[in-house]
Amino acid sequence: MVQATALPRNEAGIETTMGILKQQFGERFQTGKSIREQHGHTTTWIENQPPDAVVFPHTSQEVADIVKVCATHKVPIIAFGVGTSLEGHVNAPAGGISVDMSQMNQILAVYPEDLNCVVQPGVTREQLNTHLRDMGLFFPIDPGANATIGGMTATRASGTNAVRYGTMKDNVIALEAVMADGRIIKTAQRAKKSSAGYDLTRLLVGSEGTLAMITGITLRLQGIPEAMASARCSFPTVDAACQAVMATIQYGVPVARMELLDTASVAAVNAYSKLDLPESPLLLLEFHGSEASVAEQSATFGEIAEEVGGTGFEWTTNAEERTRLWKARHDYYWATMQISPGKAGIATDVCVPISRLAECVARNNDMIEELGLVGLVVGHVGDGNFHTTILVDMADKDEVSRAEEFVGRLNDLAISMDGTCTGEHGIGQGKRPYLKRELGAATDVMASIKAALDPDGIFNPGKILST
Amino acid sequence: MVQATALPRNEAGIETTMGILKQQFGERFQTGKSIREQHGHTTTWIENQPPDAVVFPHTSQEVADIVKVCATHKVPIIAFGVGTSLEGHVNAPAGGISVDMSQMNQILAVYPEDLNCVVQPGVTREQLNTHLRDMGLFFPIDPGANATIGGMTATRASGTNAVRYGTMKDNVIALEAVMADGRIIKTAQRAKKSSAGYDLTRLLVGSEGTLAMITGITLRLQGIPEAMASARCSFPTVDAACQAVMATIQYGVPVARMELLDTASVAAVNAYSKLDLPESPLLLLEFHGSEASVAEQSATFGEIAEEVGGTGFEWTTNAEERTRLWKARHDYYWATMQISPGKAGIATDVCVPISRLAECVARNNDMIEELGLVGLVVGHVGDGNFHTTILVDMADKDEVSRAEEFVGRLNDLAISMDGTCTGEHGIGQGKRPYLKRELGAATDVMASIKAALDPDGIFNPGKILST
Repeated sequence: MVQATALPRNEAGIETTMGILKQQFGERFQTGKSIREQHGHTTTWIENQPPDAVVFPHTSQEVADIVKVCATHKVPIIAFGVGTSLEGHVNAPAGGISVDMSQMNQILAVYPEDLNCVVQPGVTREQLNTHLRDMGLFFPIDPGANATIGGMTATRASGTNAVRYGTMKDNVIALEAVMADGRIIKTAQRAKKSSAGYDLTRLLVGSEGTLAMITGITLRLQGIPEAMASARCSFPTVDAACQAVMATIQYGVPVARMELLDTASVAAVNAYSKLDLPESPLLLLEFHGSEASVAEQSATFGEIAEEVGGTGFEWTTNAEERTRLWKARHDYYWATMQISPGKAGIATDVCVPISRLAECVARNNDMIEELGLVGLVVGHVGDGNFHTTILVDMADKDEVSRAEEFVGRLNDLAISMDGTCTGEHGIGQGKRPYLKRELGAATDVMASIKAALDPDGIFNPGKILST
Repeated sequence: MVQATALPRNEAGIETTMGILKQQFGERFQTGKSIREQHGHTTTWIENQPPDAVVFPHTSQEVADIVKVCATHKVPIIAFGVGTSLEGHVNAPAGGISVDMSQMNQILAVYPEDLNCVVQPGVTREQLNTHLRDMGLFFPIDPGANATIGGMTATRASGTNAVRYGTMKDNVIALEAVMADGRIIKTAQRAKKSSAGYDLTRLLVGSEGTLAMITGITLRLQGIPEAMASARCSFPTVDAACQAVMATIQYGVPVARMELLDTASVAAVNAYSKLDLPESPLLLLEFHGSEASVAEQSATFGEIAEEVGGTGFEWTTNAEERTRLWKARHDYYWATMQISPGKAGIATDVCVPISRLAECVARNNDMIEELGLVGLVVGHVGDGNFHTTILVDMADKDEVSRAEEFVGRLNDLAISMDGTCTGEHGIGQGKRPYLKRELGAATDVMASIKAALDPDGIFNPGKILST
C-alpha cells in the first residue's frame, strides 16, 4: 500500500455529530468496521482511510441536514457513489462522515423531446441506460465501471466515447447541490444553453466533493443511433496509428470510439482470449449514425489507415461480429491481470495534445523498460488520453518504489508536453503534487474558491488541493 | 435611453492611476471624449457610461501592469473587445479604465494536427477564420457580429451553429488570465480534456470581465467540411416547425445551423429583399459533412418536415444557391430596421427547453400584441433560444416603458418554463434583476466567488451581480 497522510481529527465534533446523525437516521447510520472500510478507498494502491460512520440519505433535504450538523461541529463530510474512483477520492484522512448516495437512486424525470433527464446522484450509468432504452435514448458517457452519475459528475469522468460525445462537463446541464452552510442551490435551468452568470455547473463538475454535495443532476441525452459499426485495424507503429487518428478527426469523421492497444496489450489479449491478432499496435473503432453514414465513415477510415500502413482492417454492423472485433478491448482488464497473477494493476491517466501522443507513448515504454517494470498501454487515442497499467507486487517494496517513480516521471512528461496528469480520473489524494506542477499559480486561485465556499474545510478534506 | 445606475467614484484613485498609466503607455493612453464614449456602451438602449480613460496594451504583462496599478488604487478596470455586447457590459458606472484589447490581436500558434490554436483576446472571429482557411480549418462559433475572441469568451457567446458545435464554453480549451492581484495564471494545459482540479477555464468563460482579465485563449478548431448544404422549409405554425426540429435532433441528424423566422419576420424580409416566401414560419438549415452525408441529412430532414406539414422544402450544396436560400436570414437585421425607420431595435435573448419553445413564442407574440408593440422573432431553434426584436421609438417614453415591460415579462416567462433570461448575450447591467429570479441562492455563491477573487471589486463593477 502507498501511504496516505492522516490529517488532524476533531474527536469531540465527530462524536457529537455521530450522536445527532444516529438519532435522525437510525438504521441508515452505520459504524461497522467493514462498511467503513468499504467506504474508504479500496480500488487503488492508496492506503484505506475509513470514515467514522456511513449515512444513507434519501432526499436532498436529508443531505442538507447532514451538512448542517457537520458544519456546526466542523466535521468532514465525504460523498460516496459506488467507490470506483482511482485516486483516493473517498478516503477519510481526518475521519468524518461518508454520505453514501446509493439510496438516492431515483430517475426523477426524462424529457425525450428535450433530450435530457434529471436524476439523483446515486443512479448508476447502467441503471440509467436500461431505463432509457425503450425511449430510444441513451446517456453516452462510459468510463468503464458502472459508476454513479454523481461520482462521474464529481470526477469529470469521460471514457471511450468522449471523442464524440465529450466528457461529463459537456453532458451536465444543471446541478442541484448542498453548499457548506446547508443551503440547497440549483446551478442552472434546464435550457440547453445559458449565459446567466458564472458557470457554477462546471465549477462543481470535477470538484470531487470538495465544494458542495451534488444532490441532483440534469443530463443531456442522445437518441440511439440507427446503426453502429465496429472496426479494427493493426498498425506497424503507435506513430502510424496516431497519424491515422489525427487524419480521421481532421477529416471530420464523427468517430464514436477510437481505442489504441499497444503491442504489449495486444500480446496480453492474444494470450488471454486466444486471439491471433498481429502483435503490433491495434486501433478499435466504433461509428454511430445512419446505415449509410456508418458505412461511409468506416470506408473513409479504412482508406486513411491504409495510407499510413494499416493492415487487417475489418468493419461490421452485425452485433455478434462487433463483439468479436472488440473482444480485445472487452477482455483487456482480465488479460492484463493474467500476466502476473497476484500483482496489482496500477493505472495512470495522462492526456497530451494528440500530436505528442506517439512520442509520449514511446517515452512511456522507454521508462517502463529502464525501471524494469511490466506495463501495458490502452488509450482513448482520439483525445490524446492513455492509461498505462503497471503490474506491481505490493509486497515488493522496491517494485512499488520503482512504480511510484514511473508514475511521477510519466506525469511530469505529460505536463512537459502541454498535457495533463489526469485526463479523466481526477486529482484525489494521489495526484495533488502534480496539480501544482501542472497549473502553478492557478492552484492558489482554486484554493481561494475552496476557502470562500467551504471556509471550514468540511467537504472532502485532503483532496485536490494540498491543504 | 434606459438609465443605468451610476456607482460611487473613487476620484483620487482614478486621478493617480491615470497619471501612472499615461506615463507608461504614452500615446496608447487616451482620454478624449469621443473615444471614451465609444468605449462605453453604444449598441443598446442602455445609457452610455464612459470610462475615464482607454488604454491599449500589447502584451499580457502590460495588462498585468495595468491591473496592478488599478488594484493598488482601487480603480475599476473594464475589458473592451470591439463593443458588440448587448447588455451594457462595457459601461463604466463607477468610471475607471477601459482596457481595449484591439492591439493584442496576434494569432500566437495554430496546431493543425491537434485542431487547436492560441490567440490573443483582440483577435476577431473573421480574422481568425481568414487565417485558418488555407489550413483547411475553421473556428465554428458565429454570434453574427465580428466580435473578438476575448469578448466572445467573456460573454459565453454562441450563435447560429451552436446546435452542432456548442457555445464558447465547449470550444475554449484553456485561458491565460490576469487575476486581481496582477498575477498571470493559465487555467489548463493544451490537452483536449483534463480532470485536473477546478474548471477555472469555464469559470472565466462567461464571467464578463468581473473575475479576471483574459489575455490568451486556446481554442478548439474544426476541419472545414467536405460539403455544406443549405435548406429551407415553410411550416403552417411555429409549433409544426418546432416538431420538425425536435424530431430531427432526436433522429441524430447533426444539423449545423437551424434558424426559425416567425411570420412577422418572413413578411419583413419579403418586403425588404423582394422575396416571395409564404408568409408563415420558416426554417433555414445548414448541414456539414461529406457530399453523401449532407445529401442524406437534407433528405432525412425533408421527410421529417413533410410529416408535420412542411412545404416548399429546398436544399442545395451549390454556393450561389445556398446564398439565395439563406437570403432571408442574411438580410434579417436590415429588414427589421426597415419596418419603422428611425426606431431602435431592442433584442431579447431567452432560451427554453425545446419542448416549450412553441408555447413560449406564442405567448411572446400575445404579449407583443397586448402591449401594442411591433416585434419579430428569429431563433436558434435547435437550442430553444430565440431573439425578439422590439422596434422602439426611444423618444416615446410610453413605448419605451411598454417595451421594458415586455422584456421583463418575456424573461419571467422563460424562467417559469425552466429556461433562462439569456441564452447567449450575458447578464451585463441589463439583466441583473432576472439573474436572481432565475437562480436564487446560487447568485450568493457567485457573489462569494467574486469577493474571493476580486475583493476590492475592481473588475467591471456593476455587472452580473447587483453589488
